[in-house]
Amino acid sequence: MKRENTIEDKHKSKASGTYQNELYQLLYKKKTNYAGRGMGLEDDLNKSNEYYRQMELAYIYKKPTPIKLVKVDYPSKQNHITAVKIKEAYFESPSTTDYNGIYHGKYIDFEAKETKLKTSFPLDNIHPHQLTHLKNITKCGGIGFLIVRFSTLEETFLLMANDLFDYIESKSRKSISYSYFLKKGYKIEESIFPRLDYLKIVDQIIGGA
Amino acid sequence: MKRENTIEDKHKSKASGTYQNELYQLLYKKKTNYAGRGMGLEDDLNKSNEYYRQMELAYIYKKPTPIKLVKVDYPSKQNHITAVKIKEAYFESPSTTDYNGIYHGKYIDFEAKETKLKTSFPLDNIHPHQLTHLKNITKCGGIGFLIVRFSTLEETFLLMANDLFDYIESKSRKSISYSYFLKKGYKIEESIFPRLDYLKIVDQIIGGA
Repeated sequence: MKRENTIEDKHKSKASGTYQNELYQLLYKKKTNYAGRGMGLEDDLNKSNEYYRQMELAYIYKKPTPIKLVKVDYPSKQNHITAVKIKEAYFESPSTTDYNGIYHGKYIDFEAKETKLKTSFPLDNIHPHQLTHLKNITKCGGIGFLIVRFSTLEETFLLMANDLFDYIESKSRKSISYSYFLKKGYKIEESIFPRLDYLKIVDQIIGGA
Repeated sequence: MKRENTIEDKHKSKASGTYQNELYQLLYKKKTNYAGRGMGLEDDLNKSNEYYRQMELAYIYKKPTPIKLVKVDYPSKQNHITAVKIKEAYFESPSTTDYNGIYHGKYIDFEAKETKLKTSFPLDNIHPHQLTHLKNITKCGGIGFLIVRFSTLEETFLLMANDLFDYIESKSRKSISYSYFLKKGYKIEESIFPRLDYLKIVDQIIGGA
């Protein structure tokens, strides 16, 4: 199924404060050469989370990108400017995963990434401290996972943190093979509401535990 | 209910403890003069959360402030600049509380504020959507609360979300009286490790439930 990327969608996402993320993804896309694909997964997840919130099912948010401020213009009474203007700042690498929240009383935490590759997902897409974070929250009783979209294949998988670490610890490869996602991951079906029903898979896993 | 792993136990069990203690004490001596403490509470909470992480007790982080980007300098190959420079941006109001994470498998979520007032805490310190968020996560089974420091009085309280909403719904006032914090809140003791042991209070509340 094709995702909609209408002007309305873009407009809505800007209105809900993800303009920054769009820009960040654009930048990221430039760096990693994921031509034209940066926004897809993030947008789908934000929309899905919005849907979950409206349905009062889960409260999961994408964390804002951390930024290091260098120069800031404080509001002054003389020129009647009320908003603080950031004049120089830089993106920082996050110390946690991008998404976290609560679902049925359970702590949920995940990182989401896209790759254009068809046979594997390169692990350098994830910061080492994000992996450490996933390990920590899993040990602490949280539900941690990775969502990976193989954009060329138009397939999105959920891989539980434990399976991710099993792979990392048993293999010395710098990427996770597509076949491992087929074997240990859960394919997330795309629909209209929500776009990516990843919590259905969480249900399956919790239910099966 | 007692925590199986008290902070003291964790502290003792850390092999690298001595050096860490020295470092912590150094940080303390420098920063526990509460004069002019605009950053006081936030700094204390960040340090406490860092301590909880080191002790492997809880993984709670402050979310970065959301920012709306307006102008960004993209990296260009010509001038060998690799860092993306933000040239114009503005702070946005957050849609959730500032702090969330996991403690003993439980979802934790709170907002922290300081006031110089001695008799009440003005409610306009908290965004309405932050209150909605606290209500939502509480209904969903999360542990939501407010941490308020009366900086002039040098007292810090934890007020559970339910008690906060009881107050808001029964009174039409625009502030919460100090006496309500004395009655329904829990005073957080200040110490060296961690600076503000608010999870000790969470233990008390969970245990007493």
